[in-house]
Amino acid sequence: MKLLFSTLIGAFVTDDNLRIIEHGSKDQLVKNHRDAQAANAIQQRAFRAVLKKSNLFQQYHVEARQHAIHTIRTLPPQDSLINHAINSFSELNEAANMLVKRCREWYGLYAPEAAHDLYDNELFITKICEKNRNALLKELQVEQSMGVELAQTDVDEILALAHQIKQMYHLRTMHEEYLASMMKRYCPNTNELCGTTIAAQLIEKAGSLKRLALLPSSTIQLLGAEKALFRHITRGARSPKHGFIINHPLVSKADRKGKGKAARALADKISMCARLDYFKGEYLAPQLLKELEEKLA
Amino acid sequence: MKLLFSTLIGAFVTDDNLRIIEHGSKDQLVKNHRDAQAANAIQQRAFRAVLKKSNLFQQYHVEARQHAIHTIRTLPPQDSLINHAINSFSELNEAANMLVKRCREWYGLYAPEAAHDLYDNELFITKICEKNRNALLKELQVEQSMGVELAQTDVDEILALAHQIKQMYHLRTMHEEYLASMMKRYCPNTNELCGTTIAAQLIEKAGSLKRLALLPSSTIQLLGAEKALFRHITRGARSPKHGFIINHPLVSKADRKGKGKAARALADKISMCARLDYFKGEYLAPQLLKELEEKLA
Repeated sequence: MKLLFSTLIGAFVTDDNLRIIEHGSKDQLVKNHRDAQAANAIQQRAFRAVLKKSNLFQQYHVEARQHAIHTIRTLPPQDSLINHAINSFSELNEAANMLVKRCREWYGLYAPEAAHDLYDNELFITKICEKNRNALLKELQVEQSMGVELAQTDVDEILALAHQIKQMYHLRTMHEEYLASMMKRYCPNTNELCGTTIAAQLIEKAGSLKRLALLPSSTIQLLGAEKALFRHITRGARSPKHGFIINHPLVSKADRKGKGKAARALADKISMCARLDYFKGEYLAPQLLKELEEKLA
Repeated sequence: MKLLFSTLIGAFVTDDNLRIIEHGSKDQLVKNHRDAQAANAIQQRAFRAVLKKSNLFQQYHVEARQHAIHTIRTLPPQDSLINHAINSFSELNEAANMLVKRCREWYGLYAPEAAHDLYDNELFITKICEKNRNALLKELQVEQSMGVELAQTDVDEILALAHQIKQMYHLRTMHEEYLASMMKRYCPNTNELCGTTIAAQLIEKAGSLKRLALLPSSTIQLLGAEKALFRHITRGARSPKHGFIINHPLVSKADRKGKGKAARALADKISMCARLDYFKGEYLAPQLLKELEEKLA
């Protein structure tokens, strides 16, 4: 008489003495051994003791581990790569902004006019890296500077910081290009519709492209406005109208009253694009963008 | 009859018709023109009208401006330079720590074992900049990595971030050396007693060496512990025992009960050193340090 056992690590067919005849998936064994009987509780307990003595558990563990490693190693890493790249981009930005403030004040000892007049951070850094103080002040048409005379070692220290910041700006641009090329392949529709930065921010906040595709468009509209949303819920402040998508030209260009409408319409199309991208649909973004522009015109 | 006027912009001697004969400091004019009479209120008013017509105000303005510019430009900038350098040092540290966390997670996709095992941030960055993944994993004796296979462009992006962080660490070290050499000249006693970083932090928090020199030692003991101090004052938490000086070996090495005593004694000596430095006293720090060590032994 053959017995059929079904356990966590697969199904087994044994003879009367609980010697394993065959091992495999339950369905297969049921088909092959129609004469086998299902084991009762007492037989089950006895069979577990047999199994424990064999090295089947060990084998199962090794195989399961291999399988898990293989699954993890071959997971498509696009979502994580996008998340890390966009986070690194924002963190570089934050760090550079913090350091540029310091650099401005520090250089302000030496040439306060330059620190004051060159309002744009990147321009300021580029200029002070390129030119020495006199050339810079001449360019800004400052006749007499209020700056302190510093020793060359002091100035060098400030310029070392400026060069560091310049490289951070450079790396930020690199990240942006990398993101753009990756997203053009991974989510062409969303990328085309919102631009790389916004699309990446949305994916990062949602967690992955899959989750973004499954979000309702009203949620997409407010991604990135969590703080304002909770202010609205807990303290009755006005409800936010837009999150990250405020930076999209169609929303930012709309007048004050039209911003909400533009954000709603854009979020709608983003939701469609994310679904197209996730479910490997067609490339419809230019058409959707055109529709949107016509609607908001 | 000569009249003597004293105004905001100097003193004047005039004749009867309020024509200015001489212009200069009041003391000088009183000495030179003992026969001059002090002007009464009506004459004062008439003289002010005369003054307004002349270009003396204009002249005074130009001179005062020149004087102010000269004063500002020749101010000793040591305090500001120290403040900026130590702030830049801490901000670089903060920025690098933020980015290294990102880099660790990002590289963790590729070689999770390296991101986990190389616990020290600087070591981690140095290693991944130097070696490729296989060499690194071999060194860490990892047989089978759980890392995902990434394209070379993806890896390059991570390594670009790592190189950036490495340079930030390098700049941080440069700042430290710069600070050390500046402070050895500017405040040798404080620098010797507390070490460069703590001394610079104290000067930065106090605002300048002068202010540090004028602070009571009990305040110096708590510089940098403002948050804990206000928690103590407003919410009755325990009073803090030490601020920045917690990082001084004499305080950090003391046992839990001895920390307060060590901090108090150290703050006392720091206060002395700051005064020696500010008032250009002798170089007594080694002696003070020795006294302190004996007291705390």
